[in-house]
Amino acid sequence: MKKNPVVAVVGATGAVGREMLDTLVRRNFPHSEVRALASSRSAGSKVEFGSKTLTVQELTEDSFVGVDLALFSAGGSTSEKFAPCAVKSGCVVVDNSSAWRMDPAVPLVVPEVNPDDLSWHKGIIANPNCSTIQMVVALKPIHDAARIKRVVVSTYQAVSGTGQKAIVELENQVRQLFNGQESTNSVYPHRIAFNCLPQIDVFLDNEYTKEEMKMVLETKKIMGDDSIRLTATTVRVPVFYGHSESVNIETEKKLTSKEARAILSQAPGVRVLDNPGEKIYPMPILAAGEDETFVGRIREDESIENGLNMFIVADNIRKGAALNAVQIAEVLLERGLLRIA
Amino acid sequence: MKKNPVVAVVGATGAVGREMLDTLVRRNFPHSEVRALASSRSAGSKVEFGSKTLTVQELTEDSFVGVDLALFSAGGSTSEKFAPCAVKSGCVVVDNSSAWRMDPAVPLVVPEVNPDDLSWHKGIIANPNCSTIQMVVALKPIHDAARIKRVVVSTYQAVSGTGQKAIVELENQVRQLFNGQESTNSVYPHRIAFNCLPQIDVFLDNEYTKEEMKMVLETKKIMGDDSIRLTATTVRVPVFYGHSESVNIETEKKLTSKEARAILSQAPGVRVLDNPGEKIYPMPILAAGEDETFVGRIREDESIENGLNMFIVADNIRKGAALNAVQIAEVLLERGLLRIA
Repeated sequence: MKKNPVVAVVGATGAVGREMLDTLVRRNFPHSEVRALASSRSAGSKVEFGSKTLTVQELTEDSFVGVDLALFSAGGSTSEKFAPCAVKSGCVVVDNSSAWRMDPAVPLVVPEVNPDDLSWHKGIIANPNCSTIQMVVALKPIHDAARIKRVVVSTYQAVSGTGQKAIVELENQVRQLFNGQESTNSVYPHRIAFNCLPQIDVFLDNEYTKEEMKMVLETKKIMGDDSIRLTATTVRVPVFYGHSESVNIETEKKLTSKEARAILSQAPGVRVLDNPGEKIYPMPILAAGEDETFVGRIREDESIENGLNMFIVADNIRKGAALNAVQIAEVLLERGLLRIA
Repeated sequence: MKKNPVVAVVGATGAVGREMLDTLVRRNFPHSEVRALASSRSAGSKVEFGSKTLTVQELTEDSFVGVDLALFSAGGSTSEKFAPCAVKSGCVVVDNSSAWRMDPAVPLVVPEVNPDDLSWHKGIIANPNCSTIQMVVALKPIHDAARIKRVVVSTYQAVSGTGQKAIVELENQVRQLFNGQESTNSVYPHRIAFNCLPQIDVFLDNEYTKEEMKMVLETKKIMGDDSIRLTATTVRVPVFYGHSESVNIETEKKLTSKEARAILSQAPGVRVLDNPGEKIYPMPILAAGEDETFVGRIREDESIENGLNMFIVADNIRKGAALNAVQIAEVLLERGLLRIA
């Protein structure tokens, strides 16, 4: 009988790490053991794993001995330092940081879009940026049907994308303002409560933010098509869970809104919510806690010959992070791409 | 000596009506008398006008006798019924509703963009939609310099655009959720607190909302150029004051971001806030309570030959409504386009 893998979750106490553990349980991911790893600061604390409680162990270079699969969500510098150690121990790493995403030797995978890229992995597989994942899930079937020439995207991103501290910051600011106090901020450079922040991640030399360029570059890599042109504006909004995206698409071949709706209705991982007459469309409060990417407000853009607008919403912690990582692990397992010690 | 006009504010108890009164005071608008008018329900209530208090009078067909200028902000049906009465009394109407905006006989004016259209008014001048006003203030100087071919806009609109009731609804929902209660809604079809609603105004046959088509059609009329192609996605966000817009522009002539910044820095009504290194960019919390339209995140869009992205924020009650109406009145007065009885 085939053995089940030993799985480690690195960054197990963070918002994404906890969701990774929950996702492994929810999807009955085969495992013989699950280890929760985190920095020395969190070592000894407890995290839930279904009905069990795991004691968090300190992440060290020796943590991966006997581990077959490691899901990392502990920031870029932790991934840079420890993912190679894990690989050296014979472990396959699915990494949620941006550290390895654009490395040509590392597959960047959304299972609905490019599962075959997993075949050439050399130990590390990168999980894309949250805002990129949900967009490509919806773009891929459109690209296959009509070839996408250009995308203009503006995002409405939830604070949970920044992590647990940002969730607390939004909560605190709302309490402060509703009690007539000045709001304070330490996670974001400005107040996020009842505000929109047109900055996500740091600014680059080209005046775009790193988040904006992640959407541009990662999309091309995942879709395996450098000819797709993209431009992005990424904005943080006072929402706890669920990233929204207003996406304008120019295609080579004409698609009516009806055709696009039919294509997306058949697409893996997509749930079309598009009945304006009944006021049904994707919203963060509907997508939060769900696995699918919600697509709606699908309509023809009459300002160009072959244009479409759509509104795409997904749970940034689930499909945007933990779920996509676990789905990658599932494909690795199914296709025998995980070496089980 | 020239007499000062008698001014009426119709809808004086609403969010925009109150701001119109405040704006008349703040800008020392010349007047010999100011009357506050509203529906019978509000008649008898008091509104502030600088250091004075005005008693609200019931709006009737006879309300405009002796009135030279009426600023309407009381909804489309009130404007449709009473604006013609006012004009018959010799009064000039600046109307904030959408009732007359697309009437070819009615000028639709943003004073920084098309003040000359006031010359052909026949008694009614329409004040454009809030999200349109702030966008055209920033688009006009770009159009003059490089001719705009196409605009893709996504909005982040504050609840105050819906009126006082929506402000209260957002407040109530936040209180309910922070007290562990279910939130209730009556103004919006779904919860707005910690959510994004991709619906503003009603849906039309072409699957766009009325708000989205207002942005498309009003922009062409104000800019006096039907060749500009536009597509819009309008979204309500949990912000009290200040509409934000992510605007992608394709021009005929190439403009660098530096050139665009220089042009906008000279443009009337615009304040460029664009220093990413210092984390300076437009945000609702900066624009609220200000008269100018804030423009930032100006950068070249490399997905097309001549493209620009920018983020435009303004106080939707001020420049988006009350201020623009009073500015129209100021131009009417300066150019002798107001007949004073």
